[in-house]
Amino acid sequence: MKLTVLGCHSATPRWDANPTAQVLEVKGHLFLIDCAEGTQVQLRKFKVKFARIKHIFISHLHGDHFFGLVGLISTFRLLGRDAELHVYGPKGIKEAVTLQLKLGKSWTNYPLLFHELEGNSPEVVFEDDKVSITTIPLKHRVYTNGFLFKEKPGERGLDVEKARALNVEMSYYRKIKQGADAVTKDGRVIPNTEITFDPPPAKSYAYCSDTSYFPEIVPQIKGVTALYHESTFLEKEHHLAEKTEHSTSKEAAAIAKKAEVGTLILGHYSGRYGNLEAFRDEAQEIFEAVELAEDGKVFEW
Amino acid sequence: MKLTVLGCHSATPRWDANPTAQVLEVKGHLFLIDCAEGTQVQLRKFKVKFARIKHIFISHLHGDHFFGLVGLISTFRLLGRDAELHVYGPKGIKEAVTLQLKLGKSWTNYPLLFHELEGNSPEVVFEDDKVSITTIPLKHRVYTNGFLFKEKPGERGLDVEKARALNVEMSYYRKIKQGADAVTKDGRVIPNTEITFDPPPAKSYAYCSDTSYFPEIVPQIKGVTALYHESTFLEKEHHLAEKTEHSTSKEAAAIAKKAEVGTLILGHYSGRYGNLEAFRDEAQEIFEAVELAEDGKVFEW
Repeated sequence: MKLTVLGCHSATPRWDANPTAQVLEVKGHLFLIDCAEGTQVQLRKFKVKFARIKHIFISHLHGDHFFGLVGLISTFRLLGRDAELHVYGPKGIKEAVTLQLKLGKSWTNYPLLFHELEGNSPEVVFEDDKVSITTIPLKHRVYTNGFLFKEKPGERGLDVEKARALNVEMSYYRKIKQGADAVTKDGRVIPNTEITFDPPPAKSYAYCSDTSYFPEIVPQIKGVTALYHESTFLEKEHHLAEKTEHSTSKEAAAIAKKAEVGTLILGHYSGRYGNLEAFRDEAQEIFEAVELAEDGKVFEW
Repeated sequence: MKLTVLGCHSATPRWDANPTAQVLEVKGHLFLIDCAEGTQVQLRKFKVKFARIKHIFISHLHGDHFFGLVGLISTFRLLGRDAELHVYGPKGIKEAVTLQLKLGKSWTNYPLLFHELEGNSPEVVFEDDKVSITTIPLKHRVYTNGFLFKEKPGERGLDVEKARALNVEMSYYRKIKQGADAVTKDGRVIPNTEITFDPPPAKSYAYCSDTSYFPEIVPQIKGVTALYHESTFLEKEHHLAEKTEHSTSKEAAAIAKKAEVGTLILGHYSGRYGNLEAFRDEAQEIFEAVELAEDGKVFEW
């Protein structure tokens, strides 16, 4: 999985601080997560081949997470897109986008499909043979979902040398990788595990923004490889976090610890803080593996 | 009048080419004209004191002229604005903005007043004792207005030395500047023109974007100090201009010549052109006083 942070700051876009948008590359897919104003410029700046985006996931309908969506959709039209585009987001998102396209008499010339969300329990919104994507209901001032991206386990690795030595028919290789026992040319059965090894562990990514401290998500995100959790504030502004239904860095770390995640990535910083290292320091008092999101930063796992 | 070009390119926002937005400063007002995606970032970049903006004029509802509006309105809220904000634009603009604010439960905490336009003849949309603003109906794929900004003539200049020599009572000065004849301390009447001189000529600015070649506007913009006229294409792409209801540089110059304007400012360039000087060259075959808009460029007159 390769995550490119396009913007990781809260509230208003500024010259050097973009509000939320991310691109997650996994198993040949390019998923866009949130789409604040300026996202299309960030996509160009960081040389993302954004025509490849076919699925856009919008967590909630605050401007710093979705005001760039209609512009990106319009740009796809101007660039002559013809591939389907799927948009997943809270109920209302379809009307907000289509009203603006209608007013500009600028309908897309490619299929634009909305998948509106209104459930309050996890829901699989995308699935193919390699990846599944599930909503993570969050707790914020408006209806909000995070998203859990999970690779499906890959095929087992085949010990080809051993297979040859044992005289296993090559035409069986595919089935063996899928878990079948091997059969030699002279009819002997070799148990699958003798000739294969475990596939690399399936990776996962949980995107949780925006939300107040909400431990109800822990069972769902248990053991994810990477967790992006918003930390709008530091603990000394805990009262603001509570009031605005955001999290502090400490709270994000507490979630990461409870969920035993691989790495915690912090972001959605309030503009009031000059030095972002304070977010890491605070989180690391509770959970060691902390990274700071930055506009343009790429994480791979 | 001081015009700051925030963006002057057509279609999609790019890292180094912003779509349309301008700020016009005149007689203490700061008027925002069009508001493409990224306008609020440009306002910060060019250090415009944008809290002073009280009136926003939107020409038409294509994204490259208005997708930044809802973001700017939201940012004003986050910055704690309490002053009224007036938005003038085509019918539908109110619903497009308010729907998004409603979905985000992000109503402004300052008065937000929409003045929706649907007329097809010039209409005064703003007027005070110093400035008037009138729509310029244009011809484009969707309902579009340009805007004509006109200073009102200032007071006459008083020749104070002559007034003193003639023994004119100081308490008359204000009325004399407003055109009254002078009266000396011994009761003699001095004709106004003997003691005053003409005020500096009232200045004006016509903003015409987007539009196909539309000479019907000429009588209305006759003699303006500066005309911004879109020139999306060069004449060799005349067929595209016709098809998309835009203008070529030559057509913009023809309008400037017919209207006998002071200066023609070109903009709204298509992204296909690398060298913008070609726009100037083409226009100057018809009209001499041509300037090229550039993001961040300031014009004063």
